[in-house]
Amino acid sequence: MDFHTAIIGSGSAGITVAIGLAGLGKKVALIERAHVGGDCTNVGCVPSKTLIHLADHDKTLTPAEVLAKVREHRNHLRDEETKWLSNTQNISLKRATASFLDSHRLELISDSHQEIISAENIVIASGSKPKKLDISGLPESLIVTNESLFDLEALPKHLVIVGAGIIGIEMAFAFCKLGAEVSLVGKNARVLSASEPEASELIEKRLGELGVSLHLNTQPETFKDQVLHLQNGERLEHVDKVLIAVGREPNLNLGLENAGVSFSQNGIKTNAHGKTNVPNIYAIGDVNPNSAFTHSANAQGRRLVQKIAFPFLPVGKEPIYPSAIFSAPEVAQVGPGLETLKQRYKSELIKSYRIDLKDTDRGYTSFLEDGFVLIHAMALTGRVLSATIVAPSAGEMIPLLTNAVNGGSSMYKLANLVFPYPTLAEAIKKAASNYVFATLPNLLKDGRTYLFNRWQSP
Amino acid sequence: MDFHTAIIGSGSAGITVAIGLAGLGKKVALIERAHVGGDCTNVGCVPSKTLIHLADHDKTLTPAEVLAKVREHRNHLRDEETKWLSNTQNISLKRATASFLDSHRLELISDSHQEIISAENIVIASGSKPKKLDISGLPESLIVTNESLFDLEALPKHLVIVGAGIIGIEMAFAFCKLGAEVSLVGKNARVLSASEPEASELIEKRLGELGVSLHLNTQPETFKDQVLHLQNGERLEHVDKVLIAVGREPNLNLGLENAGVSFSQNGIKTNAHGKTNVPNIYAIGDVNPNSAFTHSANAQGRRLVQKIAFPFLPVGKEPIYPSAIFSAPEVAQVGPGLETLKQRYKSELIKSYRIDLKDTDRGYTSFLEDGFVLIHAMALTGRVLSATIVAPSAGEMIPLLTNAVNGGSSMYKLANLVFPYPTLAEAIKKAASNYVFATLPNLLKDGRTYLFNRWQSP
Repeated sequence: MDFHTAIIGSGSAGITVAIGLAGLGKKVALIERAHVGGDCTNVGCVPSKTLIHLADHDKTLTPAEVLAKVREHRNHLRDEETKWLSNTQNISLKRATASFLDSHRLELISDSHQEIISAENIVIASGSKPKKLDISGLPESLIVTNESLFDLEALPKHLVIVGAGIIGIEMAFAFCKLGAEVSLVGKNARVLSASEPEASELIEKRLGELGVSLHLNTQPETFKDQVLHLQNGERLEHVDKVLIAVGREPNLNLGLENAGVSFSQNGIKTNAHGKTNVPNIYAIGDVNPNSAFTHSANAQGRRLVQKIAFPFLPVGKEPIYPSAIFSAPEVAQVGPGLETLKQRYKSELIKSYRIDLKDTDRGYTSFLEDGFVLIHAMALTGRVLSATIVAPSAGEMIPLLTNAVNGGSSMYKLANLVFPYPTLAEAIKKAASNYVFATLPNLLKDGRTYLFNRWQSP
Repeated sequence: MDFHTAIIGSGSAGITVAIGLAGLGKKVALIERAHVGGDCTNVGCVPSKTLIHLADHDKTLTPAEVLAKVREHRNHLRDEETKWLSNTQNISLKRATASFLDSHRLELISDSHQEIISAENIVIASGSKPKKLDISGLPESLIVTNESLFDLEALPKHLVIVGAGIIGIEMAFAFCKLGAEVSLVGKNARVLSASEPEASELIEKRLGELGVSLHLNTQPETFKDQVLHLQNGERLEHVDKVLIAVGREPNLNLGLENAGVSFSQNGIKTNAHGKTNVPNIYAIGDVNPNSAFTHSANAQGRRLVQKIAFPFLPVGKEPIYPSAIFSAPEVAQVGPGLETLKQRYKSELIKSYRIDLKDTDRGYTSFLEDGFVLIHAMALTGRVLSATIVAPSAGEMIPLLTNAVNGGSSMYKLANLVFPYPTLAEAIKKAASNYVFATLPNLLKDGRTYLFNRWQSP
């Protein structure tokens, strides 16, 4: 075999595995058909968070200068990563498109070159791409996705964003703050339909206050004379760019059938450490239906390195990954929302506690009007099932609850933890304390409910 | 007995006990000689954090309007708390000065009234006051402390702050941002001498950039003709206010000798749930040498309620309290600094990992220039001994490490925790990962060092 491991894709998942195995002395081929760094560095988190930061904090630049600075900042990081990976011992960085010949061999094709390599292990970390959406009459030149958005040289006058998920919402905030007219079109009844309804409601309110025009429960139908016609009859006028952000689909065009790897349109299913149905082939990151984030791609990569390098060590079950949406305020969540929890457990077993941040002392001294901590916990045992934080630094606050949801601490422990005063994070302690005060006097009754329900559906 | 429990002082500690016991049906006397809410609400955290927030975020108000708004905001909270406590069942709020007659009786004296009450338990939560400092020639009218600072109606032109601890530093940032000329005089070689030196260094740099003039390793000597002369020969001119913030001293003027309560000038020593040498008398909050913060006062209050109400339940040892300083950036710490750790453990056993926030991806996308996470952990076992975070939301990030320092998770667990990308909190994971990568290959060697040192000093 030419390599210990060949990795298709140099995004967050692929780089993690490459660095990890190379550091352990394994010979690795890292194959990239476009830019090193994958979506995150090039067309995802890095440029989007840089844009969000500049739109919020730098009032000295024109919108065009902001867009140029985002590119420059992104390119600098990409160049650093490329240089660094190229110079890392044991990693062969190959700029080519990969295709399976069989379960151990890949054909690599670039403009100038063609080769066949073999590897003991092959890791598919090929990522995903934006889903397409056909809008009749809409010229290609007006369409952008996250892949082309950061190449814009001028601020659109009227940007329509189709899709009210994470990308759509983050970009609605950023482009509105930069001064564009922004219309947001979502096919569900609320924005961020994967988040808790309370989070959606608050974000819709904030978008409205900023001046974003919201069009929910509908979708675009036709485009004519700079007017986008929606299914519900509304007309969006003078549109000069349309950002399509209606979801992602995995990159599966890799000759998977030649290696016998099973997949569906949702991606490649694997076991808890990324193994596909073919024992020496793994799939992690966006091609894996369990991972939709840079941090989950990284986590899957780390678990895979451990499994390949130390096969005898237990990897354990896959953790519950947090998510963070960099809106204003931020929305962070770990574990399933209440609707999903109700499908898993009897309602009587789920105890929900919400603390509004304006009712914390830090919220009061900061004149905060909204934001909250919402925790769902198991009756009696205090197990934390899931949590949502909507707050200015929600992403920085969620790790304590990620630890809790993954078994690190119960509501009883969170109620006893001492938080510095005054912080917004104290809302976590308040929620946990309310749980404890409500649970202690009802120990007997709740104990009976708990045991009865567990006996009914063990 | 007239009451189940009499509580001297209605600050954070006293209110916590009053609410807790009253909620459990116990008859409580809550005695307050000044304003309900204690230092925190009236002359501490609440007005100071409101001032810091307004100085940072409200550019439409004049400095005098900011100071007025701070008072109004503070008074509103105080009035709400007073009303609420007055209407809480089982609490008798008594506006008077208390003095012990014996271990069960207090004499209460107000302008209009005098009475003697008896109680099974007496809780001393009388707080602390600013230490005085004599500066020859300095007129009383120019002196302010945290107790009078928030009554200022106009911004001082040149404010000298004597004392470079938490209060001094927070107010230096706030008043400088409001537009005052600020000189900071500290008797130690660095500001925040109780924090890690790396934190002091960064805060000194930021203060300097803001325009605060720093005078360290010295103290004020005399004042004449609006000039403050320092011991080192420097002269601070055109001074119109001097804020004395050189530390706190406990309020002990309570006739403690009549009840036989032992105390020193540092306060009243107690066991882990606040019991003094007299079995039915407790001391919590600032009068207790273990507590210097609102949140530790609250924690001691909660522990005491549990002990009084459920004497059979174990309270456990007192936790390690975090601290947070609301400078820009914030400085949060839990556990002792490296110098103190070195007095407790052999240096070889302490492993220190520092991650600069600019080396995280969120630091990069936010153009952060400084700030860090510093963690000291025990070799081999991964026990987290202490941690410091200097970051914009350090206070919101420290709870995960408070949990770790108090036994909740090791470096191994923190390295495996998944943080949302991109957040500054990822620096915690990076520090923990570096620990793990450095530890694993040296297991044998470090194991020997650990065992040898533990054998030498068990």
